[in-house]
Amino acid sequence: MYVILVYDIGEKRVGKMLKLCRQYLNWIQNSVFEGEITPVKLKELLAKSKLIIEPETDSIIIFKSREQKWLDKQVIGAERNTLDTIL
Amino acid sequence: MYVILVYDIGEKRVGKMLKLCRQYLNWIQNSVFEGEITPVKLKELLAKSKLIIEPETDSIIIFKSREQKWLDKQVIGAERNTLDTIL
Repeated sequence: MYVILVYDIGEKRVGKMLKLCRQYLNWIQNSVFEGEITPVKLKELLAKSKLIIEPETDSIIIFKSREQKWLDKQVIGAERNTLDTIL
Repeated sequence: MYVILVYDIGEKRVGKMLKLCRQYLNWIQNSVFEGEITPVKLKELLAKSKLIIEPETDSIIIFKSREQKWLDKQVIGAERNTLDTIL
């Protein structure tokens, strides 16, 4: 399935979370990731996320779609994902 | 249609952008909005956004889906949208 993951996480934990998410998804903007992922891998990602975040203050939202084609993506301004290979 | 809008915008322009987006969509996380919107209203929102952002550095990504039911949303950690009426 295709997912969009967005997080809002305390500064101290952002680095860990970024590193984790990039193992599973493509980074497309500051705290936004997207990509094809299996339900098993998503479960794994979320289980690992829960070890990083502070559930009282941090937040992760995942939008899941069975097919990527059901979502149309439009980017305005700077395209960030070109940095993906540099960082 | 149903849209998810995420932005990554310079600090000086964030306040304006937040205010603008909240006129059209529901704020669900730091820089993330979602909601039902007509194509005409979305066009209007994007036209106004372009007057706020610095296209070289700022970025807005919009995911559009014809039907909200094609997207399944999962929240982990803190639910932010409860603050929506307070701010």
